[in-house]
Amino acid sequence: MKITITGGSGFIGRKLARALLDDNALGVERLTMVDMVDPPAELTEDARVRAISGDIGSSELLGDAIGSDTKAVFHLAAVVSAGAEEDFELGKTVNLDSTLEILEIARRHGTCPKIVFASSCAAYGGDMPDVITDRQQLTPQTSYGTQKAIGELLINDYSRRGFIDGRALRYPTVVVRPGKPNKAASTFASSIIREPLHGQEALCPVAPETPMWLASPRSIVANTRIAHDLPAEAWTAKADGSGGTWRAVALPGFHVSVGEMVAALERVAGPEVAARVKWERDPFIEKIVHGWPNNFETPRADRMGFRRDQDMDGVIRAFIEDEMGG
Amino acid sequence: MKITITGGSGFIGRKLARALLDDNALGVERLTMVDMVDPPAELTEDARVRAISGDIGSSELLGDAIGSDTKAVFHLAAVVSAGAEEDFELGKTVNLDSTLEILEIARRHGTCPKIVFASSCAAYGGDMPDVITDRQQLTPQTSYGTQKAIGELLINDYSRRGFIDGRALRYPTVVVRPGKPNKAASTFASSIIREPLHGQEALCPVAPETPMWLASPRSIVANTRIAHDLPAEAWTAKADGSGGTWRAVALPGFHVSVGEMVAALERVAGPEVAARVKWERDPFIEKIVHGWPNNFETPRADRMGFRRDQDMDGVIRAFIEDEMGG
Repeated sequence: MKITITGGSGFIGRKLARALLDDNALGVERLTMVDMVDPPAELTEDARVRAISGDIGSSELLGDAIGSDTKAVFHLAAVVSAGAEEDFELGKTVNLDSTLEILEIARRHGTCPKIVFASSCAAYGGDMPDVITDRQQLTPQTSYGTQKAIGELLINDYSRRGFIDGRALRYPTVVVRPGKPNKAASTFASSIIREPLHGQEALCPVAPETPMWLASPRSIVANTRIAHDLPAEAWTAKADGSGGTWRAVALPGFHVSVGEMVAALERVAGPEVAARVKWERDPFIEKIVHGWPNNFETPRADRMGFRRDQDMDGVIRAFIEDEMGG
Repeated sequence: MKITITGGSGFIGRKLARALLDDNALGVERLTMVDMVDPPAELTEDARVRAISGDIGSSELLGDAIGSDTKAVFHLAAVVSAGAEEDFELGKTVNLDSTLEILEIARRHGTCPKIVFASSCAAYGGDMPDVITDRQQLTPQTSYGTQKAIGELLINDYSRRGFIDGRALRYPTVVVRPGKPNKAASTFASSIIREPLHGQEALCPVAPETPMWLASPRSIVANTRIAHDLPAEAWTAKADGSGGTWRAVALPGFHVSVGEMVAALERVAGPEVAARVKWERDPFIEKIVHGWPNNFETPRADRMGFRRDQDMDGVIRAFIEDEMGG
């Protein structure tokens, strides 16, 4: 089958591509990876991979990337939270306009492709209880969160109309990301683990008691694939099939404070490593992060078979294994 | 001040224009009314009124209608529920694209106009409790409801960014509408009162026990003006000012069954009139109507000072007074 990944050069996109190509459970004939930059050679050297580099705000580029024979689109491309807050137009173009364009391309093809949409817990905000349930309303307090919430509504409506077979996943904050910090307000959550493990200092812009809702790259990639593979009937709102169909779900994650994350780093890698975390609060970042929910009950996702990480220690060990050669 | 009403020739638009011009509480210098057709002569003969007829999907038309000196926009134009379900592209153009264009025009002007957006209880749907509260999530089951829910999210984010001073109102089903039936799935709710009062038969496509959530044109116009006049600080999520700001609210209405509506018609106008209602169920309409919520608690709207109709009898009497010369 022919598959397209937007944001294919991002780290989730690369890991997803690697997983799809390696086990080939879907029988990949062509994997089109769209991003501003080409994916790494270890992916493009696979004859099934086609890289399209350019501006995802371009309708031509998206039309090229998603053909009438494309059976699945993993739409991961995004301008992340602090980035969309700093540059409203760029965020609108990438997060809203290009999502709409992808859905319109699918509608015009009339082939009802599967579209897996990466939403975010940033879609929550404002007036929230301590524990978020499957019935929580979305009242986002960032442009990024707003654009993701709109994407979910569109995924639902285009699916209901039969234009696509859509699935939207509210990703927790993904930890530990490899590579460099990005424009996400949450980027510190990876930096405070990754940089110390690489022998570098990391600045933590929030207080140790700041609570977070996290998931590992392994569980994110696994859950993104599960979202694709689930039958359409699995997307009912309630276990008994009542409440209609809703194509968005908050993924399982785990609840931990930033201080506990650093304590886990100390347990896994020792006190010298953990001491490389320096605390320096940044009000701009704190305001965004404090607006995010940090504790969830996810019975619907659990029932649907989505996976959950065990604890922070295991997540750090997996990072060392996957990204640092063990 | 200069004001623009989109959907100005619709019946709420006309009544709102009449009210704004008559008491002139806002000091109207120019009232621009945008619609597919011109508003009636009784409005255009007022020297302050400027009519713009055409396609609201046109950016040029909207740019002409909303200048940098426009202080308030009442955005009422919409392709209603059954219409947007029948013609997806038209609904998307009018309900989604034009809303976004109006917000972008305001953003480009940089003048932060007030924008009052007519949302709808069709933004609810799917998995709902018997009584809807201010915390109910929006999981709409029609394209119209989806487009309204998206409009609310955009109104919020553009307000939060300081591009506009927006206010979104979830209108209940408006009863009794004058004139002819429209493409709203709810149009029967007016027809079963209006046509019998005019000596004509009316078909009711739903069962008598079907519950509805209604508001009169008088309360809708009054509440739309209140929404404009309220200070920005009034749009906090909770009475104590916590929970942040949220620029959308479900308006107060009243809960009644279709059978009780006809019983009220009989009390006000006599059994002969009420007997003109003929019952003939239409599964297409029933499916849409049964997906709407019909009972609400609206403490937030009540606290903000929005008004509520007393009962169906009073609403019918007001229709006879306002539309049939008493």
